[in-house]
Amino acid sequence: MSRHASSNRRIVLAARPQGAPVPQDFRLEEQAMPAPAEGQVLLRTLYLSLDPYMRGRMNEGSTYAEPLALGEVMVGGTVSRVAASRHPDFREGELVLGASGWQEYSLSDGEGLMVLGELAQPSHALGVMGMPGFTAWHGLLNIGQPKPGETVMVGAASGAVGAVVGQIARLKGARVVGIAGGADKCRYVVEELGFDACIDRYDPQFAAKLAIACPDGIDVYFESVGGAVFDAVLPLLNENARVPVCGFISHYNDKAAASGPDRLPALMAALLYKRIRVQGFIILDHYAEGYAQFLREMGGWVAEGKVKLREDVVDGLEAAPAGLIGLLEGKNFGKAVVRVAQ
Amino acid sequence: MSRHASSNRRIVLAARPQGAPVPQDFRLEEQAMPAPAEGQVLLRTLYLSLDPYMRGRMNEGSTYAEPLALGEVMVGGTVSRVAASRHPDFREGELVLGASGWQEYSLSDGEGLMVLGELAQPSHALGVMGMPGFTAWHGLLNIGQPKPGETVMVGAASGAVGAVVGQIARLKGARVVGIAGGADKCRYVVEELGFDACIDRYDPQFAAKLAIACPDGIDVYFESVGGAVFDAVLPLLNENARVPVCGFISHYNDKAAASGPDRLPALMAALLYKRIRVQGFIILDHYAEGYAQFLREMGGWVAEGKVKLREDVVDGLEAAPAGLIGLLEGKNFGKAVVRVAQ
Repeated sequence: MSRHASSNRRIVLAARPQGAPVPQDFRLEEQAMPAPAEGQVLLRTLYLSLDPYMRGRMNEGSTYAEPLALGEVMVGGTVSRVAASRHPDFREGELVLGASGWQEYSLSDGEGLMVLGELAQPSHALGVMGMPGFTAWHGLLNIGQPKPGETVMVGAASGAVGAVVGQIARLKGARVVGIAGGADKCRYVVEELGFDACIDRYDPQFAAKLAIACPDGIDVYFESVGGAVFDAVLPLLNENARVPVCGFISHYNDKAAASGPDRLPALMAALLYKRIRVQGFIILDHYAEGYAQFLREMGGWVAEGKVKLREDVVDGLEAAPAGLIGLLEGKNFGKAVVRVAQ
Repeated sequence: MSRHASSNRRIVLAARPQGAPVPQDFRLEEQAMPAPAEGQVLLRTLYLSLDPYMRGRMNEGSTYAEPLALGEVMVGGTVSRVAASRHPDFREGELVLGASGWQEYSLSDGEGLMVLGELAQPSHALGVMGMPGFTAWHGLLNIGQPKPGETVMVGAASGAVGAVVGQIARLKGARVVGIAGGADKCRYVVEELGFDACIDRYDPQFAAKLAIACPDGIDVYFESVGGAVFDAVLPLLNENARVPVCGFISHYNDKAAASGPDRLPALMAALLYKRIRVQGFIILDHYAEGYAQFLREMGGWVAEGKVKLREDVVDGLEAAPAGLIGLLEGKNFGKAVVRVAQ
C-alpha cells in the first residue's frame, strides 16, 4: 500500500443533471482509507474509463441498470493495482481490471475482478482490449456481419468504439466510411486508422458529402450517435442493411421528448421497404459467451499493429467530471481515460 | 372462354390519392377482350385479393416496387381460370394463381403463374394459403422466432396476416394476445381463432388493458399497424424482444411527416436498453426459399382445422375501390377479397 495515503478521495453523484451535466452534479469527497476484511482486497485505481453510458446512470429512471442513488460513487471501469490482499486469488502488486468507479481506493471481494498480468499500457484494458473494443467487435461481427466489398458506416469514427469498428471492418474486407466531429478527427480517422473516407458532421454539406462518400450505399451502420447523423445515414441504407445500436449519444442529454417532426414513421417505412434489421445490444450480456474469443483475436490484431486506438488521457481523479462533460459534447479525441495514479 | 364476354372491364389508377384514397382516384374502363398470342394464356379473374400494400403503389414515390403510373391497371394478386391457352404449360379450364390486377380478363406469358389444381375454396390461395399466410408464417417463424411460453403480440389480429400469425404462435406453444378494432372482432379473435386475449384498440383504456393482458411482457410483436398501437406495445416489450415489421397501415394515408413529438429517440432508447431486434421484410423476397415449405406446413394445418381465416368477400370488380378504401380504415373483417366472377 502506498505509504502516504491515509484517506480515499472519491466522486459521488451530487445532483441529477437537468440536460447536460454540470460540475455541480458531482462532488469530491474524502473518506478514511478503507481496510480490507478477510476475503477482500484493497485496490488502488490507476486508470478510470470515461464512457457515454455513464450519463444514463445519472438519471432517475432506470435504463438497463439500476440508476445511481444520490451520494453514491460514480460507476466506471478501472484498472487498479492490488494495494493489499486478504483474498487467496489476488497478490499485492497485481494489476486487475474491475469496476471500482470514480475513486482512488476501493475494496473488492474479488467478484468481477480480472487479473491482467503486467501490461505496457494498462489503460488498453479499458479501451481497445476492454469494454469499448469488445463492444465494437461483438456489434460489428455478430450483428453487423459485414461481407467483403460491403460498405460499413461508423457513426462516431474517432471514438473508442467506432475507431475499432472501422479497423475491424477493414480487416474483414469492407469499405469503411466514418463520421467524426471536425477536420482533425476526420484526418486522423483516414490517415491513422485507415478508413476509406471520413465526413465531418459539422460540415454544412454533411449529408450531401456523406452520400457522395457512399456511392454504393451503406450495408452496415454502426450506430452510437442518433440525431442528425442518423437522419443523414438512413436514406443511404441499402436493402438488407444491418444496424447494430450500441448508443445514441446525441440524445443522452435530452430533457424531454423532442418536439418534432415525428421521425418514427419514416424509420418504419425505411425498415420495411429496405428490409433493414436494427438491433440494440448491451455488451455486458455477452462477456460469458464471447470475451475470451475477443481477447485472443483483438490481442493478435493489436500486437500486429492492425488495430490501434488513440487515448485521450486526463490526469487526476478531480478531472473526471470535466472529462465526462466533454465526452458528451464530443470534445474527447480518442478513448477518454482518467489517470488516477501512476 | 365465357360465351358472353366480348369486352374486359378493368380498374385503373385515375389520380394519386391525397391522404386517404377516394372513389375518384379509381376509374372503371372497358376495353376489347384481349386475344392471346402464341405462348400466352387468357385468364378470367375469379378472385382478386385486396391488401394494404396496394396503397403504397398508388403513391408517386417508389417503395420497394415501382409506383403505378396514372392510367395503369391497379395491381393485385388473383385466382383465375384459364379461359384460353396458347401456352404448352397451361390448359383451358385450369385454376391459376397470379397477379392479373383489378380486371376481369388478362393475358399472361405464364411467368409467375402457379397452377392450383381444383380447390374447394379457390380464394384461400389469396389468403391463408397465399401471400398473407406466407407473410405470417415467414415473419413469425423466421424473424419472430417465438419460444414456448413466450408472449406474442399481434398488432392487427383479425386481419389476414395477423389472424394467421396468432394461430401459428399458439401452435408453437406461445401465449398470444391480439389487438383488433371493436368488440366483435376481439370476440372473434379469442373465440374463433383461439387467441388468449384480444384488446380493442378503440377502448379508451386501450394501453392500460393491453398491459394487463401481458403480465409477463411481450417477447415477439408482429407489427403491421404503427401509430398508437405501436406506442402502446413499445413499453411492454421484454429484453431481447423481436419485432418483425410487415407493414404500418396506420400511416399509409399520411400526407406528410407527422408534427411530433418525435418518437424516434424513445424507440432507439428502448431498442438499446432492451436489446430489441426490429426487422422489416417484404415477403416477395422469400418465395424461392420458403414458399414450398410454407404450402406443405400450412396446408396440413388448414386441413386439420388448426389454422383458419375468415374472409370478407365483396362481389363484382366495381366493388374493389370501396373495398380497398374500407380496408385502409379497418372496416374489413377478415381477409378482404373481391369475387370478380364465379
